[in-house]
Order: sequence, then C-alpha cells, then structure tokens
Amino acid sequence: MRQVAIIGIGQTIIGERWDRSLRDIAGEAVFSTLYDAQRERAEALFVGNMMSGTINNQNNLGAYLADWIGMWGDEAYKIEAACASGAAAFRSGLMAVASGEIDSAIVVGVEKMTDQQPHDVTAALATAADADWEVEQGVSFVGLNALIMRRYMHEYGWKHTDFAPFSINAHANAVYNPFARLQNTITLEVYQKAPMVADPINLMDASPIGDGAAAVFIVPLDQAPLDGRSVVVAGSAAATDTISVHSRKDPLVLAAAQASVKQAYAQAGTGPEEIDVFELHDAFSIMAVLSLEACGFAERGQGPRLGLDNQIHPKGRLPICTRGGLKARGHPVGATGLYQIVEIVQQLRGECGETQVENVRTGMAQNIGGSGATILTHIFKAV
Amino acid sequence: MRQVAIIGIGQTIIGERWDRSLRDIAGEAVFSTLYDAQRERAEALFVGNMMSGTINNQNNLGAYLADWIGMWGDEAYKIEAACASGAAAFRSGLMAVASGEIDSAIVVGVEKMTDQQPHDVTAALATAADADWEVEQGVSFVGLNALIMRRYMHEYGWKHTDFAPFSINAHANAVYNPFARLQNTITLEVYQKAPMVADPINLMDASPIGDGAAAVFIVPLDQAPLDGRSVVVAGSAAATDTISVHSRKDPLVLAAAQASVKQAYAQAGTGPEEIDVFELHDAFSIMAVLSLEACGFAERGQGPRLGLDNQIHPKGRLPICTRGGLKARGHPVGATGLYQIVEIVQQLRGECGETQVENVRTGMAQNIGGSGATILTHIFKAV
Repeated sequence: MRQVAIIGIGQTIIGERWDRSLRDIAGEAVFSTLYDAQRERAEALFVGNMMSGTINNQNNLGAYLADWIGMWGDEAYKIEAACASGAAAFRSGLMAVASGEIDSAIVVGVEKMTDQQPHDVTAALATAADADWEVEQGVSFVGLNALIMRRYMHEYGWKHTDFAPFSINAHANAVYNPFARLQNTITLEVYQKAPMVADPINLMDASPIGDGAAAVFIVPLDQAPLDGRSVVVAGSAAATDTISVHSRKDPLVLAAAQASVKQAYAQAGTGPEEIDVFELHDAFSIMAVLSLEACGFAERGQGPRLGLDNQIHPKGRLPICTRGGLKARGHPVGATGLYQIVEIVQQLRGECGETQVENVRTGMAQNIGGSGATILTHIFKAV
Repeated sequence: MRQVAIIGIGQTIIGERWDRSLRDIAGEAVFSTLYDAQRERAEALFVGNMMSGTINNQNNLGAYLADWIGMWGDEAYKIEAACASGAAAFRSGLMAVASGEIDSAIVVGVEKMTDQQPHDVTAALATAADADWEVEQGVSFVGLNALIMRRYMHEYGWKHTDFAPFSINAHANAVYNPFARLQNTITLEVYQKAPMVADPINLMDASPIGDGAAAVFIVPLDQAPLDGRSVVVAGSAAATDTISVHSRKDPLVLAAAQASVKQAYAQAGTGPEEIDVFELHDAFSIMAVLSLEACGFAERGQGPRLGLDNQIHPKGRLPICTRGGLKARGHPVGATGLYQIVEIVQQLRGECGETQVENVRTGMAQNIGGSGATILTHIFKAV
C-alpha cells in the first residue's frame, strides 16, 4: 500500500440548521476542504452517512453529492457503519488511494437530523442496534448504553458523579471551537442536576445530535505539499463485535476497540504512551471510559480515574475531546468520524488556539458504530 | 494495484421470502460462497444494500452480518449507491484487496423488500432519485423511467412492441435458472397485453422486486487456485451523472455508463467486439436499450434493433440477461450487482447449462443506481 496524507480539511458548525438542506451542509464542508487543500476537484468522493435513507428520504448519496459539488462524472458512493460511518468512509477512501487506483479523494461525513420529530430521530438512532433482538424488545439506543453504564458502576463501585469530568472537560474545550454546537461551560452542579434521560445516563452524559458535515482531502503521501500542514495516516484499522450487547462475553469490554487499536498501534509503530491527543467517541460518558480502557490508557474498571485525576484536559497527560468531543461539539452521527479526524489534523497543525495541545506529534481518533459493534481507529502524524 | 480474482460465488433464490429475515438471506448466500470457495472465513466483509435503513429498521449492516455469519471481530461495513450498491460494494472490496491491506474478502449484496406494503416499497425505491427536485414533484421511480422511455420512442420512432424482445429473452433464459424469481416464458402477446404501470412502461417492461442475496469471495490473483473456476477482474470502473434526470444535457444518454465502460475497456485491453456475454441492468426495458448504446453495442437510437434482429439470446452475437436479467431473475435492488457478477462467473466457468454461451472468454456486468446517476462496469476473464 502507498502511504496516504490529508492535505485539506473542512467542517460546518453543528446545530439545528433548518435553513440548510442535506446537500447544502455537505457542500459547505467540501468547499472549505477544497479551499484548504488548494485543489479544484478530486477523482472520487466517499460519503459517510448513517440515516439519509431513514429520515431524509434520500439514498444514492454519492451521486447526489457529487452532482451538487460539481464533481460531475466522478466516482462516488456512500459508506454506512452507523455512527462509525464517517471513519468507515475515510478508510474506504484511504484504501482507494493506497491501492493506486486513484490519486485523490474527498471524504465527507454528513448528517441532517433536526428536521424530524424527536421520536423519529430516536427510532432512527436505534437502527444502529439489532432491530430483531434488541430494539424489538423496546430498548432505545440510549437505553442500551444506560444498561452498560449501570453494570459498569455496579461492577467497579463508581458513583454517577465520578463521570462528571468527561462532560465538564468537553464543554470547557468547546467554548473555543466556533464549530461546536454547545459553546458553554458546565459545572459539577449542572452535571449532577441534569434531567435524567435513561437512568443512569442524564442529559450531561449524553451527546447532542445535530446537523453537520466535515470533510478531508487525501492524496498519496508523495504528492502532499511539505508546508507543515499535511498529515500522514500512520495507522488505520477496523473491527466489529456482536451487534447485540447481550451476545457479548463481556459487555464492559469494547473488543472491537481493542482489536482495531492494536492493529493501528502496530502499523504506526507506536503505543498508548506516545499518543499526544485522542479524539474518542464520547457519545455517552460511559463510552469515553470504555474507549480509554480498550486503548490501553487505563486499567480495566479504572477509566473514570483519568478524569478525576485531571489528566484529560489539553494540558493533561492524555488530552481528549479537545474541540468539545461528541458531548459539546455535537454528534451528527455519520459525520462524527470525520469531525474527529479534522480535529486531529488541527491539533497536528497547531491550529487549536486555547485548547492546543503542546508538542503534538501523534494523534489518534476512534469512531464507534452501535453500542461498540463497529469500531475504527486511526493514527495520524505530522509529515 | 494487485490483480484480484473471484474464487467463490453464492446466491439465493429471489422471491417473497417471508419465512426468512434479512440476515438469514445474506447468510445463505455467504455460506454458499464459502463452500464454493472452499474457505472457512475471509478477512473483511463488504455489504451492498440500498434500503435496510429505509424499510428494515436496520443500519450498521456490516457488523450485523459479520456477527451472524461468524466473522466475529472482522472488518465490515455497508456500501450504498441505490440499485448499484452491489457493484459498489464489489469495487470497495476489490480496492481493499488490490491495495494489499487485506488478502481476502467476502462481498455480499442483500435486500429484503417484500415484507412491506407496496406503496412503502415504491417510496423506498424513490429514494434513489432526488428527494427535493424529483420525488417531491410526485414522480415515482418507474415514472422517471417512463418519461425517458416515452422521449426515446418519440425521438427515434420506435413502437412499444419493439422493446418486447428484451423481456421475452429474459424470461426464456430464467426458465433454466433455479434462482430466478419468474421461471416462466412469455409471448409477444403477453408482453403487449400486460397491464400498464406508468405509460409506456407496462408490467413486462418492469423488473420485479424481491428478497435475495448474492455473494463472491475475492483474493489476490496470485492466491487463486488454478482449477479452471477462478475468474480475474480485468476491468473495474465507476462514474456518476446528475441525480436528477432533468439536469442532464441529454436524458437519452447514460453518460455514467459511457464513462465507466470506457475506463473498464481500457483497463481490460478490450472493447465491445470482444465481450462474449453482458449482464446489463434491465430494471426497465428502456435501461437495457440505453446501456447497450452507451457500451458501444448499438448506435444511438438503435438499441432495440439488437433485440429485433435476434442477437441477444445465448446463441446470438451479444448474449444478455442469460440467467433471466433483472426482468425475470428478479431485482432485489442492493443485491442485483452481485447477482450479475455471479452470473458472469457462472458463464466463464461454463456452469449455465441450457443458456450457456459458447466459448466465453470475456464477460461484462453493468449495474445502474438511480435513473443512471451511479453506474459501475466490471469486466471479467477466465484465469
């Protein structure tokens, strides 16, 4: 495989963008990316999206967007892996460029979720779980995560409030991210008094959905400009677990995170001690904890300790969610994997201002689809 | 890129399989493929599917199927390009193997359509067209194709009955395909008297939907057994056109077919005169005509001539739809691209019995998503 580099990034603000269509939003991110890459077009378009066929009455998203952004005639299709659709699309584009078949690609993740009634969005999110064996029993997607969190608290003796640092850190960082949905800080009291969503997950444990798109421009490494802005893909791996949580040997272990991070570390010739910044998938605070443990940053059952010991902020030992994470930047599901990658590129370029991590040489992004069913891990280094 | 070969194929009968779930059907095709390839598992799974999120309440289809078929832990995701999802998934798997990232993959196309009310399926099919600019105006997917067919007849002076040979040929061939949905012949009278669906498309111009799955097992060519059953991918290309028919310079030309077939011919070092068998996308008889013209088998406006001159049957100059085509084998939309590829492999292996084409050395499959918006062309040769 050829090595591949990211030479351009783009993103939209995440919010309730009722004045913009699905294609408008994706176009915004793509045009920003083209401008940032100083390119006029790419050879192919890979679209990460989960639910356009479920709530936007729109499939055939590759052609739909290639048409809109002026990539007339170019190869394009959509990749879907629930909330990991963004990273899955990135990996598809990566392999196409790495294979030598094409020399440039745009990968865009996009989701338009807020035009719907909330119960329709809840139903759409549940399509990430097993329709026959989980959802049919009446459990929602947040409900599944609540079951995991409750079990985790029971097993290891943590209190709900021990998870607070994850949400507080995410909000604190989002204040400095102009693209974040929730650009406000929260206090421990706000966390503790937030309305319950699905016990023990309250509103401050759960990430907000939103409309948004993020994109990257990729080329073979030997075609990337050496201007200090290019970033090389040092590791890329995907793995799956059973789709139903109840089918797992251990519901408190993200086996697909363990498998994909192990491969990514090996490819990049690195390990947890060398990761300078980590954009993890904090769709719910329990997922942040399980991701940290699966990736070797905490012993099993000890994930909350990293937050309580104040190690996860931008000046800490392991900065996470430096642009707000899913919790405060927002979680437009099929776009999230691309937001994470864009943010790692921003960190490697040194473009993060108040939440810039010092001396970043290696960054990692991990994107989770379903309750841990599909997990992709990517490691990036400055060129 | 490494060259890639197909070493195993599998498919299910297409029909109203109310006793089987989405995963049951996909599993049937995958297990047949593993048996045919004499392999126990692959490194990755690529799923071609259009509407699981629209009508089956199920996204995250990669993990969902990897789990069911025992590929625990393996990389898996879904690729969507409307009715071209099958070929798009094949091309994604192809690039992953060609890149050197993996040494084996299963590509499965699956669709479960018949558990729904007909109007829900009609709405789901319309998600292949432009939700805002076509469907919102009240036009259905068959309606769009009817507009194209009417214009074609007007422009070139063909009568409706001139399209009959395509449907008659497809049905005649399906009689010998145990996996076909409609294993019956039809006469010219049946064609002429069929009920109208969307004028001028009648029931015999339109392919039946269905539940079904088809799959292939791919490996690098240098790892394929030399037993006369392996088939090499000689050409693979994808292209797009505007998603809305009204945006095209010429609605009677499949520009994405022209672009993708041109690339595929160049890669394979071949041309229309060397194609021994062609599985084209006869979702409607007008699409068969436009595909033949775009691929260089007929002059513009002359596609129906091939049927009227009796050249498209298995002993003719250009055999098409040798296993029944979409018209009679059936069209489980996201699976169709894989059925076409499986059928070309059967022809190259000489496994087609009564509809076997003689001396097949080169076969081509073309899969269309939307009203010509996404088109993939693949060329295969015996190893």
